[in-house]
Amino acid sequence: MRFEFAERMNKLEASVIREILKVTEKPEIISFAGGLPAPETFPIEAIKEANQKVLEENGEKALQYATTEGYNPLRKWIAERMNKTLGANFSYENILITHGSQQGLDFLGKIFLNKYDVVLCESPTYLAAITAFKAYECNFIEVPTDKDGMIVDELEKILKTTKNIKLIYTIPTFQNPTGVTWSIERRKGVAELADKYNKIVIEDNPYGELRFKGENLPSLKSFDECGNVVCLGTFSKIFCPGYRIAWVAAHEEIIEKLVVIKQSTDLQCNTIAQMDIAKYLELNDIDEHIETIRELYKKRCDLAVETMEKEFPENVKFNRPDGGLFTWVELPKNIDARELLDECLKHNVAFVPGGPFFPNGGNENFFRINYSNMPEERIVEGLKILGKILKEYL
Amino acid sequence: MRFEFAERMNKLEASVIREILKVTEKPEIISFAGGLPAPETFPIEAIKEANQKVLEENGEKALQYATTEGYNPLRKWIAERMNKTLGANFSYENILITHGSQQGLDFLGKIFLNKYDVVLCESPTYLAAITAFKAYECNFIEVPTDKDGMIVDELEKILKTTKNIKLIYTIPTFQNPTGVTWSIERRKGVAELADKYNKIVIEDNPYGELRFKGENLPSLKSFDECGNVVCLGTFSKIFCPGYRIAWVAAHEEIIEKLVVIKQSTDLQCNTIAQMDIAKYLELNDIDEHIETIRELYKKRCDLAVETMEKEFPENVKFNRPDGGLFTWVELPKNIDARELLDECLKHNVAFVPGGPFFPNGGNENFFRINYSNMPEERIVEGLKILGKILKEYL
Repeated sequence: MRFEFAERMNKLEASVIREILKVTEKPEIISFAGGLPAPETFPIEAIKEANQKVLEENGEKALQYATTEGYNPLRKWIAERMNKTLGANFSYENILITHGSQQGLDFLGKIFLNKYDVVLCESPTYLAAITAFKAYECNFIEVPTDKDGMIVDELEKILKTTKNIKLIYTIPTFQNPTGVTWSIERRKGVAELADKYNKIVIEDNPYGELRFKGENLPSLKSFDECGNVVCLGTFSKIFCPGYRIAWVAAHEEIIEKLVVIKQSTDLQCNTIAQMDIAKYLELNDIDEHIETIRELYKKRCDLAVETMEKEFPENVKFNRPDGGLFTWVELPKNIDARELLDECLKHNVAFVPGGPFFPNGGNENFFRINYSNMPEERIVEGLKILGKILKEYL
Repeated sequence: MRFEFAERMNKLEASVIREILKVTEKPEIISFAGGLPAPETFPIEAIKEANQKVLEENGEKALQYATTEGYNPLRKWIAERMNKTLGANFSYENILITHGSQQGLDFLGKIFLNKYDVVLCESPTYLAAITAFKAYECNFIEVPTDKDGMIVDELEKILKTTKNIKLIYTIPTFQNPTGVTWSIERRKGVAELADKYNKIVIEDNPYGELRFKGENLPSLKSFDECGNVVCLGTFSKIFCPGYRIAWVAAHEEIIEKLVVIKQSTDLQCNTIAQMDIAKYLELNDIDEHIETIRELYKKRCDLAVETMEKEFPENVKFNRPDGGLFTWVELPKNIDARELLDECLKHNVAFVPGGPFFPNGGNENFFRINYSNMPEERIVEGLKILGKILKEYL
């Protein structure tokens, strides 16, 4: 039988990252490709304890269906945390528990986007946000972006002249893929423009708590005066990603629509996962835990930057992040990072080519480096190999 | 700010069931409303053991990101189980692990449905399948259905005369909401027509293993000669629903598209949940476990039917299911089950009115009764109250 798929499928391809991850499952590969946290930070013993307690105290509830919105003690913890760290003003009713932040992106696409609507984003931006929105057949305009974030004047030019803009998608802190952190002026400027032009801003913040240098900056949310900034947060990077527990925090009118979509999409998140995490948070000091992650990633980032400075040719540029999981490498314009990847894979080194992070294509002379996942000695070894290949290649 | 939502949101409402479930959380309510399994069947001790073993033996892997397709040992178990119970011929590569069967429905809508495409279904059909597909702005045609399932001649009339039919959605065994099981002729007939007219059939089978009377019947899949029958299965009813682990089993071309959608939607299912279930299946005899569920549901179903026969007025009809979780009650035509529900809630008894199970509306004189969740004495008590109200009402 010839299967007839929906039109939206023509625009969607398998994720480059997920496909590369399959290759990098081989143990001999030194992979800078994924966005994987360091597994040695996972608090396995504490999770065992939390799970046992949940099943002992409340097993029938933990294994049963539950409400779509999520487990209330967890929603309350999240609201309080966001109020503290982002200067927000959420109650638990502003929180929807989602199956990873990826589901938050999908749902926001689903509730806001008609075919041909426009999404504005940084250039480059998070690859899987592009595919999440693309499934709703939208168009993208990449807002010019520099080392301080989205350029406010350029954003206003686009807002003034473009019809059917529905979403402005941003990752203002330790951006994926670039590692860039927006300046305070840009944060304020973008929030003000979104308010003035009546647009929804998504502030995606998976890495914000992983700052290992400099001072925390106010969130876009903290400049929000009309409820149009929607926040995404996740336990994947401060706890562990295997549980797939994340959240959307938003104005209650938006949450109401998201709940309708969650009902039709997957009813609810894993009950026991939510209760395990809530129990872990009750029994443990997550700030202490996050501090150990920060220290480890600082060490790995410093080492990566140091090695790249030493081993990479001079005409290869890269960012020095203050936190998060990634840095971003710029090659001379004539070099195609996909071809470079093929060469590197022959030497058992992997990264993600930059092209797919630009929704409208082009810019093949970039690639993304993740420094959180590999042990230190392999980071150095891998970047040395990469440096050697680069020198031969250029 | 006035939020501008996508057009698809105009057609979607919060699920009646989920909204009623919020009311029925009060302990004094005797609820026949949800589709909740009996929590006393959850194998809590065995799950504790499985979880401890997974974290001890393989904690870092269990808490990390994993492949989109799902955990291979679990995919293999599922393929073998389906080959045994449904006469299918699947390998693990035909299986995608999903976040509940609800996600399977959403994904199938997403990969197959353009706006205004047509979905054929039983009349009535599963409420949350309607909302899953409706999010892709399709139309529904309800195929006339009787006590033996979808009527084959009626289906062919529709197939002959209707453009843009993309999916035929079916629950042939212990249907939700009616409890009806299709005859073997209907199964064969529908499969043959789908083949002849080149249409995808979804065989949703959450209850198939919960037969407590009569003989197993061959699946639609067993009559599939060209790969157009897509099977949905779940651990929610034979194990526990809190994990949200289910699957789609389909032709590999369909799985390929589903994987692309899963990547853009939520990346993957909960790693540790998949590994916990695989470990549980390794250490325990699930057939023995399912047998205890069957016995319990048989007892509750018999009791419910017996009580309804005794207590309900003669002009109220209902089905006698051979398995599954539900029966379906027909009131005289002039009675509105939504109004009856309001009356019943005053007496702390709840059920789901039948109207929302008909995608094109009408038929307000039905309601669905779940008998799996409440203890026996409350089933009898609740149905007695319901009988009394019905007698006063008619």
